Amino acid sequence: MTTSIIGIGQTQVGEHWDVNLRHLAWQAIEAALDDARTTNIDALYVGNMLAGTSSGQEHLGALIADYSGLRGVEAVVIEAGEASGAAAVRQATMAVMSGQIQTALVVGVEKATDQTGKEGLKSQTTSLDAEYETIHGLTPAAVAGLMMRRYMHEFGVEVADFAGFSVNAHANGKANPLAMYRNLLKAEKFGMAPLVADPVNLFDAAPIGDGAAAVIITASDRARGMVEKPIQIAGSAIATDAFALHDRKNILKLEAVEKSTKRALAQAGLNINDVNLFEIHDGFTIMSALALEAMGLADFGEGYKLANEENIGRNGKTPISTFGGLKARGNPAGATGVYQIVEVASQLRGTAGDNQVAGAKVGLAQNIGGTGGTAVTHILRTV
Amino acid sequence: MTTSIIGIGQTQVGEHWDVNLRHLAWQAIEAALDDARTTNIDALYVGNMLAGTSSGQEHLGALIADYSGLRGVEAVVIEAGEASGAAAVRQATMAVMSGQIQTALVVGVEKATDQTGKEGLKSQTTSLDAEYETIHGLTPAAVAGLMMRRYMHEFGVEVADFAGFSVNAHANGKANPLAMYRNLLKAEKFGMAPLVADPVNLFDAAPIGDGAAAVIITASDRARGMVEKPIQIAGSAIATDAFALHDRKNILKLEAVEKSTKRALAQAGLNINDVNLFEIHDGFTIMSALALEAMGLADFGEGYKLANEENIGRNGKTPISTFGGLKARGNPAGATGVYQIVEVASQLRGTAGDNQVAGAKVGLAQNIGGTGGTAVTHILRTV
Repeated sequence: MTTSIIGIGQTQVGEHWDVNLRHLAWQAIEAALDDARTTNIDALYVGNMLAGTSSGQEHLGALIADYSGLRGVEAVVIEAGEASGAAAVRQATMAVMSGQIQTALVVGVEKATDQTGKEGLKSQTTSLDAEYETIHGLTPAAVAGLMMRRYMHEFGVEVADFAGFSVNAHANGKANPLAMYRNLLKAEKFGMAPLVADPVNLFDAAPIGDGAAAVIITASDRARGMVEKPIQIAGSAIATDAFALHDRKNILKLEAVEKSTKRALAQAGLNINDVNLFEIHDGFTIMSALALEAMGLADFGEGYKLANEENIGRNGKTPISTFGGLKARGNPAGATGVYQIVEVASQLRGTAGDNQVAGAKVGLAQNIGGTGGTAVTHILRTV
Repeated sequence: MTTSIIGIGQTQVGEHWDVNLRHLAWQAIEAALDDARTTNIDALYVGNMLAGTSSGQEHLGALIADYSGLRGVEAVVIEAGEASGAAAVRQATMAVMSGQIQTALVVGVEKATDQTGKEGLKSQTTSLDAEYETIHGLTPAAVAGLMMRRYMHEFGVEVADFAGFSVNAHANGKANPLAMYRNLLKAEKFGMAPLVADPVNLFDAAPIGDGAAAVIITASDRARGMVEKPIQIAGSAIATDAFALHDRKNILKLEAVEKSTKRALAQAGLNINDVNLFEIHDGFTIMSALALEAMGLADFGEGYKLANEENIGRNGKTPISTFGGLKARGNPAGATGVYQIVEVASQLRGTAGDNQVAGAKVGLAQNIGGTGGTAVTHILRTV
């Protein structure tokens, strides 16, 4: 049996100073319930990473269920660092496949701005190894810097070679009314941005933002009778890798990405070349290059060569980050994975507006926790 | 299809100053793998509530998988406040029932002593409503105090009437070598303890501790060929309630306990009177009284009357907290629910030693988050 998405919802990504976490979650949930034209929900899966440290609030399952008018339903939080959102979707699919849950609602939500400055950064580093990485001052940007520097050294690549990833993200973000950044970025401006963690600069790093996205999932045979265009979750897989960067066999190989992609494609009975678009975890440009390589879309050390419009653009061979990705849509940590799945579903429904990839029938969404310790890959398709 | 437990493991509950979180988890995992005589694990479910705030460490799924020699497996954290442990078991059962996962490992782990004093208390209150309860100074003991005071007022009960719950927990804890407190408690000493949050006193409140417990779960038909005495998970249910105490219709009725118990019993095809022992969430004595009432073992307002050896003792009619419960075994927050399930499995295997309930064939484990916002109930049985 497979599951299908019958409802999607999402909020603007940005700095929502006027809305609290539960209300932000509700906005996405309300949109998804409206979209699916149902209020019959049996279980709620919340994807969240930062609320405990940023808002002093754990136990979001019962809290958001209650606030959203779903008091009483089964509800839990699923956490896997920045991959929490997609990991929550994965649990929801299995709950439906088990026969224990008929209809599951997944909401990814993050209210990162409940905490700012140094404390905010501290929250965001909790997906790294506190005892062997964070303690030495490493942050998400710093570990990305280590990976990028090694890549540049190994393959003789310059910072400017990564610009195309950010340029593409901003071009797509400009078309997305819910994106955090809707300004175009010129390649020549990329290298002029202030450094965050050498060689990672400001235009290389995705911004953390507030946001919530929701999907409603039920069995595929049931979904067909409920909505006009259910989107099938044809593949769903989580894989892990060595947790800390220094324990990897090769810090330039994202093994969890490779494994989870293979598993998800095998479930779907598809090949990577059957996929029409890719929502990848472009928190830093180096992650885009490494993910394209790990998925087999580029040879090892050559992923950066795809960073141009002919390849990764909306009308290219391998469209990525079609709504702006983490870089321009924004990265609401534990909500990001659900945004990606909402975006792929929009593309496959053909309702992506100015962001539409023409004729998209199969899409991939990939959410990464930490530096690649966790990777969650979903394959969605039209039926 | 149902699932069964093929391996169990647990560590001493206490103050483990010399062990870090990942190693504590590993100790329980190693014991469970040894017990099941297998190392073939397809997915890891981590139950944890405090690590983000206490240890600056989220993303424990990949971290503990890696540290435990399970690098690469699917791994996530399940969080539902103090009910995280049992919620993780629930997700594991559904993953196995879905056919996506053959063998799942669940570890509940908590290293509460990574943070002490005021900051430690702050972490422990993250299961309450940060914006409507915690902000006014409420703590877990304070909300229990509100419930207990109301109960005493409503039913004309004295503090001393609750003593029997703690006396029983300590009698059982004395027999459990892994318990945090192994001293007997005399009823006449109960009322002399210093107040924590009037009317809750020190002997009324369960101690937070460090600890880890693990179970290995697979399909029941497979389990029979693997171990001598698999323990069937005959029922598994999560229910939620109004999140904050002030939103409940009646703060003395634990609706999530009632709902999850009914659902779990219905799945098992059993009646509450078929259950031979109950590992309940006795974080405070008032919670024991209210849970017994919500499960239908006592009439409303009469749960406290069961607080004596003839009823709740190991040889009584309704044995509870048979290894000491949260009060004497200790309460390692997000690990507690897994301890309860390990304890029920030990009882049903007949390997509970001095804690054995003679002839136990069906056991119930019940884990509560917050003041009852989440309740997770499992029914285990011999086959």
